[in-house]
Amino acid sequence: MPHHHDVLVRWSDEDRLGHVNNSRYLTFTEDARLSWLSDSPTGSAAVILARTEIDFVRPVHFDVGGLLCVHTSVLGVGRSSVRLRQDIFHAADTTAAAPADRTQAVARTEHVLVCYDYGKQRSRPWREQERTWLLQWSAEAEST
Amino acid sequence: MPHHHDVLVRWSDEDRLGHVNNSRYLTFTEDARLSWLSDSPTGSAAVILARTEIDFVRPVHFDVGGLLCVHTSVLGVGRSSVRLRQDIFHAADTTAAAPADRTQAVARTEHVLVCYDYGKQRSRPWREQERTWLLQWSAEAEST
Amino acid sequence: MPHHHDVLVRWSDEDRLGHVNNSRYLTFTEDARLSWLSDSPTGSAAVILARTEIDFVRPVHFDVGGLLCVHTSVLGVGRSSVRLRQDIFHAADTTAAAPADRTQAVARTEHVLVCYDYGKQRSRPWREQERTWLLQWSAEAEST
Amino acid sequence: MPHHHDVLVRWSDEDRLGHVNNSRYLTFTEDARLSWLSDSPTGSAAVILARTEIDFVRPVHFDVGGLLCVHTSVLGVGRSSVRLRQDIFHAADTTAAAPADRTQAVARTEHVLVCYDYGKQRSRPWREQERTWLLQWSAEAEST
Repeated sequence: MPHHHDVLVRWSDEDRLGHVNNSRYLTFTEDARLSWLSDSPTGSAAVILARTEIDFVRPVHFDVGGLLCVHTSVLGVGRSSVRLRQDIFHAADTTAAAPADRTQAVARTEHVLVCYDYGKQRSRPWREQERTWLLQWSAEAEST
Repeated sequence: MPHHHDVLVRWSDEDRLGHVNNSRYLTFTEDARLSWLSDSPTGSAAVILARTEIDFVRPVHFDVGGLLCVHTSVLGVGRSSVRLRQDIFHAADTTAAAPADRTQAVARTEHVLVCYDYGKQRSRPWREQERTWLLQWSAEAEST
Repeated sequence: MPHHHDVLVRWSDEDRLGHVNNSRYLTFTEDARLSWLSDSPTGSAAVILARTEIDFVRPVHFDVGGLLCVHTSVLGVGRSSVRLRQDIFHAADTTAAAPADRTQAVARTEHVLVCYDYGKQRSRPWREQERTWLLQWSAEAEST
Repeated sequence: MPHHHDVLVRWSDEDRLGHVNNSRYLTFTEDARLSWLSDSPTGSAAVILARTEIDFVRPVHFDVGGLLCVHTSVLGVGRSSVRLRQDIFHAADTTAAAPADRTQAVARTEHVLVCYDYGKQRSRPWREQERTWLLQWSAEAEST
């Protein structure tokens, strides 16, 4: 199962068109990654975002109390990088009990994170324990 | 009792100092007002913000899952305006059961809202039903 | 004359009503203060914002290339604090050559800044050189 | 030559790491597209963003007066879509007179825009005049 993270949409996330502004999808997925990584052996401080792809599938609107849910799973683990899938759903369209229907996502995103040693100012390889943790979130079981 | 509204702090709310940026206090109180007004006879669409005062009491930091709680109450109702108090707390420092200790607030804010008729492009007086609803949220009982 | 700082309005500053969101006025005045302080003997790092008041006079809209101009002047200097006036105008409504007509401001704001010693974690008095610099920006000559 | 659009970095664009937050790259490229489209026969209102890719090459920091410059060019024109390249540079690293060195970009992005008929709620083909305008911005001459 992917990691689930709920996001509260804010009034000011919308722009003049009454749509949640495109830039916010990076904010939502960022917060979801930090939540996901907070339980990892790596922590969030040692990881940087190298690349992002976003498919904007349908517009999102603000409603009082309106929640989105970001589903985070691992598509692949490299020597010092990881490729993530983060799909964004209306929280009401998903449950923890069943895999989400990806056609219902409001946006589908992929990200490349790199494990980074700030002291040495360069990437570093995952440790074995980190790799094991990442692979637990593999999307394979659920992917089409 | 004031109206309670929980706010999820986002990583990107912080600035370089590791503090939630000052501008976000207006975002948090805005969302709290929209939640509060969503149950009112007026609704949120007919009200505009005319004036804001903010006392920044102590800095706020991002933590995964960290919640703030905005307490909204009415300080006074004019012919076509209302003066609000909105105190912002760490959600962990407040309960629904007891009045909050205002000295624990991370920020104390006051706002003047004006009831506005967008069709006529000018303010309009509160209707009796609206005034009654607003006065239910009076801060008097709790104020020092 | 007050300090002038130009601000480029962004599309995403607007909310669903097609108005620049209220929270952005704090962003605009923040950037203006940093620009103003960058030439001061204090610098921007030793000053914190304690209090803000904003009167929202008229809505602002996004236009491609649309500029606002923030005018910063000093209303009073305390032992370790300073009270600022920051009026926000459409840049087209102001010139460097003449005092601005405050009735044309889109918003009028006041702020209390406190000089802060981060090492000792408490406020510190202005030094004489700092006080002299601040008083150069006094609003007296221009105020009504 | 690509379209050039200057962006003023704001203090609040930075996050706790002292880097301009990732989400802002979508804000900068959005404003650049609106500036670019404001001179087009299509206008900005009839175009929606369908897909975005961002390579984050190096971190950007806030400096008073610090400008970025977004270079927008066309990679391909479909029946009702256009593929854009938008590279982000420090303004100081580019001039209008010479092609930019893409290895100096702080971020390299690509976007798919779709021409949209809001009345019919569906995409519509480019008109001939629109296609001609888009092809003027072709990246071919400068690529690789």
